[in-house]
Amino acid sequence: MPRFRTLIGALSVSLVMAAQPAWADDGYALWLRSIAKVDRQAVVTALGDSATLTLAASELRRALPMETPAIVVATASAPSVRALTLPFSTLGDEGYLVCNVTLNGKRVILVAGNSDRGTLYGAFALIRHLATGGQAAAVNLRSAPKVKLRVLNHWDNLDESVERGYAGQSIWDWWTLPDFRDPRYTDYARANASIGINGTVLNNVNAKADSLTAPYIAKAAALANVFRPWGMRVYLSARFSAPIELGGLKTADPRDPAVAAWWKAKADEIYRAIPDFGGFLVKANSEGQPGPRDYGASHADGANMLAAAVRDHGGIVMWRAFVYAETDPEDRAKQAYSEFKPLDGTFADNVLVQVKNGAIDFQPREPFHPLFGAMPRTPLMIEFQITKEYLGFATHLAYLGPLFTEVLDAKTGQKPGETVADVVDGQAEHHKLSGMAGVANIGRDRDWSGSTFNQSNWYAFGRLAWDPDLSAEEIARSWAAQTFGTDRQVIDTVTAMMMGSREAVVDYTGALGLAHLMATGHHYGPGPWVSDLARPEWNPTYYHRADANGIGFDRTASGSNAVGQYAGSVAKSFAKPETTPESMLLWFHHLPWDRRMASGRNLWEDLVAHYDRGVAYVAQMQRQWEGLRSKIDAERWQKTATYLAVQEREARWWRDASLAYWMSVNHRPLPAGVRAPEHDLAWYKLQRFPYAPGHTQ
Amino acid sequence: MPRFRTLIGALSVSLVMAAQPAWADDGYALWLRSIAKVDRQAVVTALGDSATLTLAASELRRALPMETPAIVVATASAPSVRALTLPFSTLGDEGYLVCNVTLNGKRVILVAGNSDRGTLYGAFALIRHLATGGQAAAVNLRSAPKVKLRVLNHWDNLDESVERGYAGQSIWDWWTLPDFRDPRYTDYARANASIGINGTVLNNVNAKADSLTAPYIAKAAALANVFRPWGMRVYLSARFSAPIELGGLKTADPRDPAVAAWWKAKADEIYRAIPDFGGFLVKANSEGQPGPRDYGASHADGANMLAAAVRDHGGIVMWRAFVYAETDPEDRAKQAYSEFKPLDGTFADNVLVQVKNGAIDFQPREPFHPLFGAMPRTPLMIEFQITKEYLGFATHLAYLGPLFTEVLDAKTGQKPGETVADVVDGQAEHHKLSGMAGVANIGRDRDWSGSTFNQSNWYAFGRLAWDPDLSAEEIARSWAAQTFGTDRQVIDTVTAMMMGSREAVVDYTGALGLAHLMATGHHYGPGPWVSDLARPEWNPTYYHRADANGIGFDRTASGSNAVGQYAGSVAKSFAKPETTPESMLLWFHHLPWDRRMASGRNLWEDLVAHYDRGVAYVAQMQRQWEGLRSKIDAERWQKTATYLAVQEREARWWRDASLAYWMSVNHRPLPAGVRAPEHDLAWYKLQRFPYAPGHTQ
Repeated sequence: MPRFRTLIGALSVSLVMAAQPAWADDGYALWLRSIAKVDRQAVVTALGDSATLTLAASELRRALPMETPAIVVATASAPSVRALTLPFSTLGDEGYLVCNVTLNGKRVILVAGNSDRGTLYGAFALIRHLATGGQAAAVNLRSAPKVKLRVLNHWDNLDESVERGYAGQSIWDWWTLPDFRDPRYTDYARANASIGINGTVLNNVNAKADSLTAPYIAKAAALANVFRPWGMRVYLSARFSAPIELGGLKTADPRDPAVAAWWKAKADEIYRAIPDFGGFLVKANSEGQPGPRDYGASHADGANMLAAAVRDHGGIVMWRAFVYAETDPEDRAKQAYSEFKPLDGTFADNVLVQVKNGAIDFQPREPFHPLFGAMPRTPLMIEFQITKEYLGFATHLAYLGPLFTEVLDAKTGQKPGETVADVVDGQAEHHKLSGMAGVANIGRDRDWSGSTFNQSNWYAFGRLAWDPDLSAEEIARSWAAQTFGTDRQVIDTVTAMMMGSREAVVDYTGALGLAHLMATGHHYGPGPWVSDLARPEWNPTYYHRADANGIGFDRTASGSNAVGQYAGSVAKSFAKPETTPESMLLWFHHLPWDRRMASGRNLWEDLVAHYDRGVAYVAQMQRQWEGLRSKIDAERWQKTATYLAVQEREARWWRDASLAYWMSVNHRPLPAGVRAPEHDLAWYKLQRFPYAPGHTQ
Repeated sequence: MPRFRTLIGALSVSLVMAAQPAWADDGYALWLRSIAKVDRQAVVTALGDSATLTLAASELRRALPMETPAIVVATASAPSVRALTLPFSTLGDEGYLVCNVTLNGKRVILVAGNSDRGTLYGAFALIRHLATGGQAAAVNLRSAPKVKLRVLNHWDNLDESVERGYAGQSIWDWWTLPDFRDPRYTDYARANASIGINGTVLNNVNAKADSLTAPYIAKAAALANVFRPWGMRVYLSARFSAPIELGGLKTADPRDPAVAAWWKAKADEIYRAIPDFGGFLVKANSEGQPGPRDYGASHADGANMLAAAVRDHGGIVMWRAFVYAETDPEDRAKQAYSEFKPLDGTFADNVLVQVKNGAIDFQPREPFHPLFGAMPRTPLMIEFQITKEYLGFATHLAYLGPLFTEVLDAKTGQKPGETVADVVDGQAEHHKLSGMAGVANIGRDRDWSGSTFNQSNWYAFGRLAWDPDLSAEEIARSWAAQTFGTDRQVIDTVTAMMMGSREAVVDYTGALGLAHLMATGHHYGPGPWVSDLARPEWNPTYYHRADANGIGFDRTASGSNAVGQYAGSVAKSFAKPETTPESMLLWFHHLPWDRRMASGRNLWEDLVAHYDRGVAYVAQMQRQWEGLRSKIDAERWQKTATYLAVQEREARWWRDASLAYWMSVNHRPLPAGVRAPEHDLAWYKLQRFPYAPGHTQ
């Protein structure tokens, strides 16, 4: 069986590989692998000549072989399509349908939407359908996105480093922009379009004002021009104090007319260069960033002032709710809710409040953020972290689909049956705006995301942003087929590995609702002992509160009462250990080590078992992957095999270091038969990683 | 005409491109392009099974088509080769011969050296011979390297940034080493072997002690294992104060026995991991780096102590002469000579002193460093900068072959006819050791060096390190043919563009011996007005000394007398303006703006003419490149075209900013018909590039 490979670039060429199984694949093609030879492509006709429609046609040609039935790409407004009276009215701006029709007397597969963007999404849906084993004969796809803004957040700095990026430098080569348009930019937009992502915030939320200067606006405009035919808009993170730094004003107070005027003029300048500019993302009064609170104004004052600046252009503001004060002694998990909930109803109608999936910071597991459902008069955008800041960087295999869906599927307790997904997609309150943001894991590495399996997290984010009701497993299977081909054993094995992989990270880094146990700064590796950082809530000891008697953070009414920020049956369930899911037990409760668990073991024994389960899962993934050696191209197989070995070693390190520390606190022996840590606690405390990637600014 | 392309990686595959001229080539293959299809390769037999011999055979197979006569790769010791009585005795360890012979009754092309490394170099020589239009029938190549250590210096930091690197992050992914061995490492070694480079210093001369810790030694060892079969050794930059930082000693005084013992133990540790470790490169007492002078010891004391640590293992020390004191009021151009010349004869015999090509710092033009020829009892390694810190980063086209050969061909004036090349290759004094170092321009960018034409500088360095007597034009033609194919128009045009390109940079940044006129920190763009930096010799005004009456640095006896560091006829020539080449005039002399020049113009008019000539040359390169549009693959053509447009704009910027400044000093009008600067001087002074690449640590 020969294999094919596509160079995605300015050109479409397919290249026959030499031999099997030792063929090479560097991962650049992502999940977009051609099954067509260049001289034997599908026959595709475009009705119309918009750039986007042309792209839709060429994507189908490059992906699909000649044997595919003839395909027509069109928009609903094409006369011959209009005559078919298909159900376009349910598709909205971006939806598509793909079905067999008779057009001008011929049987063809029609790919069409109300807009050419919809058609492009339909083209990728058809490719996905066929690449995952679907038949052409009976194809009948119809879909419209449930979430309006499906946006990547790049934490990319202007010096081309990436905060919490583990796939090399920023994909944006700011230095050679706007002159040089790297073919990668096109490939990036294409990959995003293939999974429905329609926006990208180019720069870090820890923003420099320079990104709003004329040279950088020109650079952003060059990217916007590349992205536009792929249906993607550009957004910028805005530094709230820019009027001072760039405009020479004395203040950035949002209530000052000169400040508002500066932003209005700046927005006008941006829109002259980028007519479809999406708007601003703002991290204000958070971790040292400037914001309206510096002037006694509220977050709503700040957001609304910026929203007014972009409103006439059709722009929006995404205002982050990730705030915790430098001096506030309140439980960090409570602060965003305390600050934002009272503002519900005060935001302009082109503002979304962007809320992280959990109340702390992208831990391997967190309960859903209590703001979801608590601000019915405000569109809440959810922010996921695709890059694995706390889940092993690029080297650990952790498929985040289950993390994303666990949060999206969570009941808010606010209304009967309401889920976080209902809030996010705007259905719950019929909001005009809705959005999902993912902190990108994309860099300049050849395989984009630092590892093949990390690509699946980019893919899963896009698919879920389009449809938050998809299952993580369905997405995993689809990704596996598009990435590795349709061999059943490969798909089954890869999907099985993926599905338990995030739980394995939870297990070997700290299960049962523990969180924030990592080392300082780089966030790589264990540091549950860390207690000497300047602010209490920076320390792992703040979160686990372990002592000789017990472990966990009492967030019930007898403690910080963060539970009180949840509603209805959810609040009730979290209020007592007996009704709290064990997976979140120690997030909400401080409990004795001796507490009896569902397993019949006590808490300490159960925690130990989780560590061992996590390590064992990684070893099992190694065996599963070994079994696929002959079925995966050599380069991708070897890199993944190497990374799994790293992960296995580091899972043991997490386990051993954590157990050594817990034992130093609880003075309990390990259960019989359990392996002792390899080193003593002092050794683990000595580990240093001064050059860990991704920790910048 | 179909084109072929090779993916260099773990595998050898050749890939048929789709269409011409719009085919894609991302530049990854460098000058190593296959002309063989995978199923129609040359027939190559290896006599012997060393890893290196096997590589030599596979390189020939992947590069050469079936039509090539049968090839045998072997070493001189193979019995059937020995029987031929070929002139192996003149080839040394690394030389090769390639010739037609009858072996076991068959006519074959024999590729052989005394070592398998020699054979590998021969294989690449044969590929080069055929790729540049040579015939197989009469092939008769014989060559041995004139320089023993042909070494790249990577100014790569452990955080994966590169100081003065313009091709992305460090190629070394320290974070995933030693586990993950990126196929790029193999491709890097292969490219180096193809041009004769046999060593690489992995880390920045501004070194961190961490690079000498056990984890980083293991990482370096993993790279050494990859490089070994390609004939490349690994070296490390050593931080002189490491015994304090890592060893807990109170001092790094090289005369302290505990310090020497620490280094000896450290060397032993390194050699256990890397048995063929090359040795240390040291930047000491230079720009803030620690060194023996901190303790009143000499550079020789420091170098010899380290040399003793590696001597028993066959290691060497490369000790840099790039020193200038923080407080020394002496002309910076004189300080290295003043400090090192008296030490001649005091260095251990496994020490080389590494001297930059000029006495300041890699300017577009500098006279050769006066130390060459002045330390006959010490092997002097020359250090060139391949990366273009002062010649336009990655975006400007500047072929450095003429810069390298101008220095190598310079007469030292010390002995009749002696050139810098004679000193560097060790012939002048029959030194056992000789070496040439090039500061690498290699990064993680897909095309390795940030632009296609930058690859030629890597190539030229390697070729000249093997044979400093090659001409820059011969190398350019050879590179053009290997890189773009054998079309005569392409080779002629590309070679013509290259040959004048460095002089164009000299012209538009400051000709007639001016130097160090760049902006601060990043060294990008003009800053001749800068005069406010803390140390006098950091300021451009220190170097040009322009005022209303004249311009230039008087380095004759009436000035700093740097001329007195040169010898014989060279010193005599530099002593007077009349006998100084005009290209170096203002380096050695302060002269009135009215001085009459060879052109008949006065100095001011001549300087203006140089600026205009530089700008015009770039515009001419644009036209030349435009004429090749149909003959170069689309991706490489477009990137170069874009970069030439950047260069043309920035050449005008350099010209205009410089003229605006000179006019503010000399109050002279521009000659008639000369275009005025586009902006006023204040505008040029306002330009800021806070995120320019490559300026780290």
